[in-house]
Amino acid sequence: MDGSLPTFDDVQAAAVRLRGRVHRTPVLRSSTFDSLCGSEVWLKCENLQRGGAFKARGAFNAVFSLSDAQARGGVVTHSSGNHGAAVALAARERGVRADIVVPRGTPSIKVAAIKRYGATLHVCEPTLADREARAMALLQETGGTLVHPFDDPWVIAGQGTAALELLEEAGPVDALLAPVSGGGLLSGTALAAAGFGGPIDVFGAEPSAADDAARSLSAGRLISEGNGFTIADGLRATLSPRTFTLLQRHVIGIATVSEAEIVSAMRLAWEVLKLVIEPSCAVPLAVLLSGREPRLRGRRVGVIISGGNVDLDRLPWAPAG
Amino acid sequence: MDGSLPTFDDVQAAAVRLRGRVHRTPVLRSSTFDSLCGSEVWLKCENLQRGGAFKARGAFNAVFSLSDAQARGGVVTHSSGNHGAAVALAARERGVRADIVVPRGTPSIKVAAIKRYGATLHVCEPTLADREARAMALLQETGGTLVHPFDDPWVIAGQGTAALELLEEAGPVDALLAPVSGGGLLSGTALAAAGFGGPIDVFGAEPSAADDAARSLSAGRLISEGNGFTIADGLRATLSPRTFTLLQRHVIGIATVSEAEIVSAMRLAWEVLKLVIEPSCAVPLAVLLSGREPRLRGRRVGVIISGGNVDLDRLPWAPAG
Repeated sequence: MDGSLPTFDDVQAAAVRLRGRVHRTPVLRSSTFDSLCGSEVWLKCENLQRGGAFKARGAFNAVFSLSDAQARGGVVTHSSGNHGAAVALAARERGVRADIVVPRGTPSIKVAAIKRYGATLHVCEPTLADREARAMALLQETGGTLVHPFDDPWVIAGQGTAALELLEEAGPVDALLAPVSGGGLLSGTALAAAGFGGPIDVFGAEPSAADDAARSLSAGRLISEGNGFTIADGLRATLSPRTFTLLQRHVIGIATVSEAEIVSAMRLAWEVLKLVIEPSCAVPLAVLLSGREPRLRGRRVGVIISGGNVDLDRLPWAPAG
Repeated sequence: MDGSLPTFDDVQAAAVRLRGRVHRTPVLRSSTFDSLCGSEVWLKCENLQRGGAFKARGAFNAVFSLSDAQARGGVVTHSSGNHGAAVALAARERGVRADIVVPRGTPSIKVAAIKRYGATLHVCEPTLADREARAMALLQETGGTLVHPFDDPWVIAGQGTAALELLEEAGPVDALLAPVSGGGLLSGTALAAAGFGGPIDVFGAEPSAADDAARSLSAGRLISEGNGFTIADGLRATLSPRTFTLLQRHVIGIATVSEAEIVSAMRLAWEVLKLVIEPSCAVPLAVLLSGREPRLRGRRVGVIISGGNVDLDRLPWAPAG
């Protein structure tokens, strides 16, 4: 890897590195869900991944790619939660120190996981600027290595292994669909699709309220401003130049859905698929259920079910009277 | 099969009959759950089965074992829900009529599934006597075949295929654990264990509030009275002479848990395993978490995760203030 843009080879190397360290998660089918979507849907269940999210893949790939000398300094990251827990878990298994910067307001289940895995927690303001400043300070203090939640070639290559496994199991689907936040998962998914062979259309799914990726791809330039609040707490980051470049090359389109559609899809997944998924993870399912993207209808679609870390005491639907 | 007691051969025949008709569900591991239990736990996820419960196995095996002449009369059953939905689904796929008797108070998600699969619904009083009387009347009216929820050799053999698949994947575990209600699942599980080879201890799990199986095995005679109310709505039936005989032959013990332990285990499964499971399904997990059965601690234990059909509007834990 040249350190800037990862390739399909890096995804394959990550798959080898991750073997035995993270779960090979199941790929599920549901005829009820298929009929609701009008597509043949293959669900790659990363909510059943270690740490409850696909983030273990990128984190383990990055942490286990460090040289012994690098590893001695430990690792630092900032994260809205799932990536932080994944880095904490990977660091514990490698036996190195982890310092995790987490913005205020992160769901308590995600914070609890970071603590459980033995990392040191640093709470910051919920802005990218403060996250990055705190992480930089920690890097200087510890001499550690930054494992960025998405703007890191090893992280991107690791995330791509979920799609690679999905394709190995389902064969060359017509389309792949993954949520987009900073763009690490979608970039890795796109690399896996491009390298696997067969024309596979790759789509992103994004909340309308935080649609910087859709606007950036549509404008042909990186737009990081203009995002509002979304319930999808894992999708509040914006693309980096690196992930924007990869998405421009490999992604066909970004579909967006409303907050109400996200909540409704999340609940439907719990009821029909029997999977605990978090709001961010419901975004691609909401795209499928909306029928809004004609290039997904009636086709074989692989979806990355990205994570399942939800506060059960704060479910986004009203309790019955 | 001689029509009375099914054998391991019947379980193997069922596995062939079910291929392509029901899901081969995933077997999951969780290091967090293992450390909470102090056992090495292999989770056979029948909540991800068609219809959201293991019941599809027995129902499909029974419905697809009917001769064409028998099938023309359709099928009748009575069920607290999951079995009814499974018979409805199997009948629809075989293209035959299904009449399902359901007791008042059955969770609406289970009733909705029966309707969705196109069966005719008959609501009765929540007593075994009224269920059976209504089913008998329907059998006379339609000339159909009864597919009993547990007291049926084809149903028992079908349920045993879940444990068979678990053993194929995990290898010969030290122990198998399944919930017990009428005893169909546990009987099938025990047949699979006995035939698979290697000494595998088979345990049942039952609510203390409805512990007729524990009392029957302990007394050495079938006791059907004395059950109280349990939140585990799928575990309110009692053993039949047939399932009692099979459990006497093959089951080592029945562990019981309190209602509070059931709710706590259910919530923990949602949070840690990211699986939507119903209260009945939480009963064996509560047994493991309780540490009460010393013959499960520190051992490799296969568990049948039996089903995930829950009303999301009526969760058994209090909403946060």
